[in-house]
Amino acid sequence: MLGSMMQMPLLISSLLMHAERHHPEQEIVSRRVEGDLHRTTYRELAGRARRMANALTARGLKMSDRIGTLAWNGYRHLELYYAVSGSGAVLHTINPRLHPDQIVYLADHAENTILFFDLTFLPIVEAIAPRVKTIKAFVAMTDAAHMPAGSAIPNLLCYEDLIAEGAPEFDWPQFDENTASSLCYTSGTTDNPKGALYSHRSTLLHTLSAALPDALNCSAGDCILPVVPMFHVNAWGIPYVACMVGAKLVFPGAGLDGKSLHDLFEAEGVTMAAGVPTVWQGLLAHMQANNLGFSTMRRTVIGGSACPPAMIEAFEKTYKVHVVHAWGMTELSPLGTICSFKFKHKELSVDQQLALQARQGRVLFGIDMKIVAPDGGEVAWDGLQTGDLQVRGHWVIDGYFKGEGNNPLVRGWFPTGDVAKIDADGYMQITDRSKDVIKSGGEWIGSIDLENIAMAHPAVAMAACIAARHPKWDERPLLVVMKKPGMDVTRDELIKFYEGRVARWWTPDDVVFVDSIPLGATGKMQKNKLREQFRDYKLPTA
Amino acid sequence: MLGSMMQMPLLISSLLMHAERHHPEQEIVSRRVEGDLHRTTYRELAGRARRMANALTARGLKMSDRIGTLAWNGYRHLELYYAVSGSGAVLHTINPRLHPDQIVYLADHAENTILFFDLTFLPIVEAIAPRVKTIKAFVAMTDAAHMPAGSAIPNLLCYEDLIAEGAPEFDWPQFDENTASSLCYTSGTTDNPKGALYSHRSTLLHTLSAALPDALNCSAGDCILPVVPMFHVNAWGIPYVACMVGAKLVFPGAGLDGKSLHDLFEAEGVTMAAGVPTVWQGLLAHMQANNLGFSTMRRTVIGGSACPPAMIEAFEKTYKVHVVHAWGMTELSPLGTICSFKFKHKELSVDQQLALQARQGRVLFGIDMKIVAPDGGEVAWDGLQTGDLQVRGHWVIDGYFKGEGNNPLVRGWFPTGDVAKIDADGYMQITDRSKDVIKSGGEWIGSIDLENIAMAHPAVAMAACIAARHPKWDERPLLVVMKKPGMDVTRDELIKFYEGRVARWWTPDDVVFVDSIPLGATGKMQKNKLREQFRDYKLPTA
Repeated sequence: MLGSMMQMPLLISSLLMHAERHHPEQEIVSRRVEGDLHRTTYRELAGRARRMANALTARGLKMSDRIGTLAWNGYRHLELYYAVSGSGAVLHTINPRLHPDQIVYLADHAENTILFFDLTFLPIVEAIAPRVKTIKAFVAMTDAAHMPAGSAIPNLLCYEDLIAEGAPEFDWPQFDENTASSLCYTSGTTDNPKGALYSHRSTLLHTLSAALPDALNCSAGDCILPVVPMFHVNAWGIPYVACMVGAKLVFPGAGLDGKSLHDLFEAEGVTMAAGVPTVWQGLLAHMQANNLGFSTMRRTVIGGSACPPAMIEAFEKTYKVHVVHAWGMTELSPLGTICSFKFKHKELSVDQQLALQARQGRVLFGIDMKIVAPDGGEVAWDGLQTGDLQVRGHWVIDGYFKGEGNNPLVRGWFPTGDVAKIDADGYMQITDRSKDVIKSGGEWIGSIDLENIAMAHPAVAMAACIAARHPKWDERPLLVVMKKPGMDVTRDELIKFYEGRVARWWTPDDVVFVDSIPLGATGKMQKNKLREQFRDYKLPTA
Repeated sequence: MLGSMMQMPLLISSLLMHAERHHPEQEIVSRRVEGDLHRTTYRELAGRARRMANALTARGLKMSDRIGTLAWNGYRHLELYYAVSGSGAVLHTINPRLHPDQIVYLADHAENTILFFDLTFLPIVEAIAPRVKTIKAFVAMTDAAHMPAGSAIPNLLCYEDLIAEGAPEFDWPQFDENTASSLCYTSGTTDNPKGALYSHRSTLLHTLSAALPDALNCSAGDCILPVVPMFHVNAWGIPYVACMVGAKLVFPGAGLDGKSLHDLFEAEGVTMAAGVPTVWQGLLAHMQANNLGFSTMRRTVIGGSACPPAMIEAFEKTYKVHVVHAWGMTELSPLGTICSFKFKHKELSVDQQLALQARQGRVLFGIDMKIVAPDGGEVAWDGLQTGDLQVRGHWVIDGYFKGEGNNPLVRGWFPTGDVAKIDADGYMQITDRSKDVIKSGGEWIGSIDLENIAMAHPAVAMAACIAARHPKWDERPLLVVMKKPGMDVTRDELIKFYEGRVARWWTPDDVVFVDSIPLGATGKMQKNKLREQFRDYKLPTA
C-alpha cells in the first residue's frame, strides 16, 4: 500500500523557483572578469535563467545535451547551473587549469554541443576550437562591449545577446528526478579523466543534507563566499544550497589571492567561506603580514585535501573563525564527511576540540562508510587501525559516464582510494591516499601525518612526504619542503622536530628543500610528480 | 539520459541504522508510566526495534498492516515508530484524549490488527476491547511485573515479553519509498476524523527539511524534549529528526505540567523543546510563581495554534529562550512554515524582531504556499490582504485514507482551511481558521488578533473570540475570557485595553468571563463549542 502524498520530482529547477518566490531581494555579488563588482538578486537570477533557457531551447537545446563551461565563480555561471540543468540538459563544468589536450579530450568525450567561457579563457578556447569535434557554438560570458575583436573562433556568440533574445516566460519542464543534471570529470592523475554524471535527485538530496546544522550549516542569515570553484564538483554544492536557504552569495571570480579575498570578506559581510587549504594559506599569509582580522566571518569549510592542524589552530585561536573540516570527492557530489561536534564534545578543552577538528569527521546523513582490510573484511572503528575507505549513498556514483573504467564498485560500495581510520564515535580521519602510503618493512606509514607535523613548523610553507626507495625497508619517508619566504630551517632541525611527535620509525629519513611543490588543477599537491622527480633519490640511510 | 548515481530508497529504517552506526552512545531518557526515569541509547533502541520487528513478523505481521498505538512520548513508543514502519507496516498513532467512541471508529476504519497501549490507557482499552472489530492482540507497553492483573482484555500481551521473544538479528526490508509508513487522523471537530497516510519518502524529505538551520535547527549537540505528542502527527517529526542528527532525546511521558517539565529540562540539559501554546502557559506560570530560570534551554518551537505575542516576549526577554513560531497541520506531516530571520533582519531592534516572530514564518524548502480570494485568484503578498491559505509539496497529502472526503485538492493545491496574509518577504501569518472568521457588515475580522491582545493583559489566562449574532452587522466579536487564578479584570477594562491596539470597529462588542475554555484532543481551543454555548447570546450593542 502506498502513502497518499503528493508526488513531485526532486528537480534542480525547484531550488531556483523557491529562491525567486521566497528570497527575491537577496543579493548575489560577483567580482567580474570585466574588473568590476556586479550586484544582482535571486529574482534577477531566476528571470535571466529563464531567458537563457528560452534562448537555448530556441537554438535547439534538447534533453540531455551536454553543455560545457570554462568559467570562474560568478553570477553568469550560476545562471547556467539553473538554465541548463533546469531545462533537462547536462551542465558539464570543465576545469580551465587542465592542459588544453585534456580539455579537448573532455569536450569530445562528453560530446559538448555548446561551450560557455569566461574571457580569461579566450586563449584556451582559441587553442581548442579548431580541434574539438562536437561543439557547434562558443559563447563568451560577457556583453557586446567586451566581446573579443577579431577572434578566429567560429560561431562565437555573446552571452548577453543570448539573454536578450530569450523570452522572459519559461515553465521549467517536469521530468524523472533521476535524469542526469550535471557532469564533472575526476582530475585523473594517471589515466584519462572519468566523468561523474549526477542526477537531479542525487543533487537535491545532497543539497538538503549538506545544509544541515552539523554539515555546512547554512541559513538565510548567511553570506557565503565559495572559493572552491564552480568548475569542479559544483563548488561543493554551495550554488544549490544557497538558493535553497536564501543565503547571500559572494563570488570571487578570478581574484583568489589573499588580499582580493580578504577585501571581499570585509566589504560584503561574508559569514562563511569554503575552499582548499592552499587558498587559505595565501589568505592567512596576507592577514598575518598586514595585521588584519575578520569582522563578520564565523566559519570556514576546508576540504579538498587534509587541513593541517596548524591552519585549524590559526583560524580558531587567532582569527576566531570556526574551521569545519570536510572530506569528499568528485564521485560523491562531493560531500562525504564533515567534522562537527557531538553533545559530549562541548565539555572538551579547546585543544582537545582542535585535535578532533583535525579529523575529516562524521558522514552526512545519506552516506554510509566503512574501512576494509586487503581481504575485504571490515576494520574496527577504534581510531587506531587503518583500512581502505569505501562509501555508498544517495549521491555516490554507481559507475562513470559512458561506462569508463567498467564497474568501479566493490560489492555495492565505492572504493575511494583513500586510507583512513575511524574512531568509536564515527569520526573518520584520512591517513593517506592508498597510492601515497609509504610501505616500510611491510608496515604502512601515513604521509599526511608526517606532512602535518612539518607544516606546524613556523618556517615551512608546504611539505610533501613521499616514499623513497630503501634497500632494506623497501620504502622510507622522504620529506620535500618548501620554506616560507625569508624563513630558514635546516634538515637536522626538521628531523629533530619529529621527536616526540611521532613513532621513531615513522620519522623521515631525509629532507629535501624545493622552490615549489607542484599543485594539480584542483589545488592538491601532485605527489606523483614529486615521486617521479625523486625516483632515483639516494637516502643517506640506504 | 539518467544520472549514474547509486539508487537506494528513502526509508525510515535508514534513519535508525544511521543513528545506531554513528551515534550508538547517545542517550534517550524517558519518564515512564511506571513512575521512574528510564535511560537508554540509540544502540539499544536499534537492537530492541529489531527484536520487536522479529517478534511481530513471527506473529504474522505483513506489509501495510496497520498497527495502532495509544501511548505517551517514551522510548517504547519510539521503538514502535521504527519497528513497525521499518518492517513495511503502518504505524497508526491514536490520540488517547479522543472519546472512546471515536477511538473505536478509528481502530475499525484503519482495520488495526494490533493495539499497543501505555498502562495509563488501560481503562480506555478495557472499554473499547469488546467493541473493536479487527484487533487480534492488545499489547501493554510494560514489563511482566507491571502487567495488569485480572483484566478482561482478550489476547493481552506484554511488551517486554514480545521484545524477549524476538531474535536480535533483522535485516530491515528494502521496498518502494512511496510505501505507506504511518497514519494519523485529523482531529475532525464536526465530521468523522479523516486519515493522513504518510509515505517513507514524504517522511524522509520532511525530516531533512525540518532539521535545517532555518527550521528546527537540530544537531548532534542538541538535547531535544518534544512535549508535542508522538500520538499526533509524529510529534512534528522530532522522533525522526533526532535519529538523523544524533540528538539526545528526552521524553516527558505523562508529566506535562509545568513543574514536571521544568525539572526534566534542568536535570537533563534540554536545549530545545517543542509544543503547543497551552502547554507553555503552564510551564511559564510555574516558573513565574517559583522564580525559576533555564540553565540550558536555547529555543522552543511553538505551533499547533497561533502563539500569543505576550508568550513570545516572555520567553525571549525574561527567559532568554528563542521562540521559533511554526505552523503546520496533520495533512502536512505536519510542518509547513517556520519563523526564522533573514540576513537583513539581523539589524532589527528586539521589538521589531518580536513583531516578526508573531508570524508563522516562511515555508520549509519542499513546500509551496499561496493565498487565494473566493474566486480562486491569487492574493498579493503585501502583508495586508488576507486569503485562504493553500499549500502543495513533497509531504502534503493528495487525498485522505480510503478516499474519505473525496478529492480535497483544488487544482493540485491543498486548501488548509486557514485564512492568512503573507508579506513581501514570504512571512505568512494566520489570521484565522476560515470557519472562525467574524463577518461584520461584509468585512472580515480575524479572531486570532483579538485573542492575542486580550492574552497580553496580565489578568487573562486564556481568551477566545467568537462571532455573536448582530441584527445590523450580521456578526460582531464576543470575547470569552478565562482569568488567571487570583487576578481580576472587568469587562470595561478589557474593552478599553483594545484602544490603540486595533481598528475601532474590530473591538469586541462584549466580554463574558468563564471558568474554563474547552480544549480539544490536541490542545487547541474548541471555539465551535463556545459558539454553541453562546449561540443565543444577546450583545449589548444589538
